Amino acid sequence: MTNSNVLFQHGTLALLVPGLLDGTITMKELLQHGDTGIGTGEGLDGELMILDGVPYQTDGTGKVNIVSDDFTLPFANSHFAKYEKLMSVENISRPDLQSTIINKVKSANTFYSLRIHGTFKNMKARAVRKSTKPYQTLAQTAENQNIFDSELIDGTLLSYYSPEVFDGAAVAGFHSHFLADDHQFGGHILSFESVTGDVKFQRFDSLEQHLPTDNKEFMEHDFTKDDIINDIHSAEK
Amino acid sequence: MTNSNVLFQHGTLALLVPGLLDGTITMKELLQHGDTGIGTGEGLDGELMILDGVPYQTDGTGKVNIVSDDFTLPFANSHFAKYEKLMSVENISRPDLQSTIINKVKSANTFYSLRIHGTFKNMKARAVRKSTKPYQTLAQTAENQNIFDSELIDGTLLSYYSPEVFDGAAVAGFHSHFLADDHQFGGHILSFESVTGDVKFQRFDSLEQHLPTDNKEFMEHDFTKDDIINDIHSAEK
Repeated sequence: MTNSNVLFQHGTLALLVPGLLDGTITMKELLQHGDTGIGTGEGLDGELMILDGVPYQTDGTGKVNIVSDDFTLPFANSHFAKYEKLMSVENISRPDLQSTIINKVKSANTFYSLRIHGTFKNMKARAVRKSTKPYQTLAQTAENQNIFDSELIDGTLLSYYSPEVFDGAAVAGFHSHFLADDHQFGGHILSFESVTGDVKFQRFDSLEQHLPTDNKEFMEHDFTKDDIINDIHSAEK
Repeated sequence: MTNSNVLFQHGTLALLVPGLLDGTITMKELLQHGDTGIGTGEGLDGELMILDGVPYQTDGTGKVNIVSDDFTLPFANSHFAKYEKLMSVENISRPDLQSTIINKVKSANTFYSLRIHGTFKNMKARAVRKSTKPYQTLAQTAENQNIFDSELIDGTLLSYYSPEVFDGAAVAGFHSHFLADDHQFGGHILSFESVTGDVKFQRFDSLEQHLPTDNKEFMEHDFTKDDIINDIHSAEK
């Protein structure tokens, strides 16, 4: 029943914009759609990374926790890992890494994932502190973040790439989280200087987009008043 | 294995815009994802409607054919029918019908389908004539269409509604095809004056978006040069 050609997505980035931050899927359900993934908790409660079936959360204080089955999320991606090695890299800058990958995989029009394990220089990651109801907008909620820096750190970058035409539903381009090998550092990646390590790649031919149709606030929200694309790009890139 | 909460989509409306009109899914495969659906054939070969598992094509001359398993399509939707009756209507105009449905189902933020059987007044439908390679753009190819009119006709309207945030991947709003009971008339609906009949409704919580990743032209196309949204709205609405 596991299909490694499918990327599962619960919620949309668009619903985060006006602050629809209720947790509408449990980690237990999310793990049924993959052993690998990223997401955020209810009320933007930290930055999640699922690695080899284990759900890690970097919370707003920078602490890395393993969350329970009943942890809920407003937005998440997961898939069943079947990566292939793409290349090894040495001291490659982030822009050079991205352009090298883009040229090598030639998959701009479909969804794919990258998993990069290595040593990262000057990694800067952020994690948002959980908000409670009534929620503010994504832009306001995301101000409650801490930024963590590390000069030199071993760990895993997990990224999903989405084609431009799905911008708003997903983040067009790359959306990347990080988790250190020693589980003392992690979060949504803001920047890093360079990386030495191995780059793995997995391409999908399908997006399984699941929407929180049981959530009254989502179903009744008038999205026509939100400036979805601009708000996403300022908060999530 | 049939899940009536899932809308399957092969291809995107965006890929039609620059003329990526290769048939990239067979009718046999499409029928594995539903017994109900709409789509177009390779080279915009007519307007398809799957009803109760039978794939009907209104071709560019207005003739209705049942297509074979190996008929291919660049873009299509299908799902497993589990409609519920929404209401009966009598001589309701198309704008009034749409606004009544929108207010009644309160599902603007998710995908749903309508199946309306009844008597339609002044139905105007179109079907595009098949183009061959090298394909022109959607706008150019869609000029090769015939428009069919019927003063009074019994038949089935099948429609999919997609939320605004998926515009480009799908057509935001309603995308509707028609097939007459006597199979002598059909196509993509341009307009009708009014309808008397029964309106059925089925809501989805998931979109299974399948992309033609085996198609070299799709994978290598540079979509950044296309004016996707405007071209879709002029050709498909």
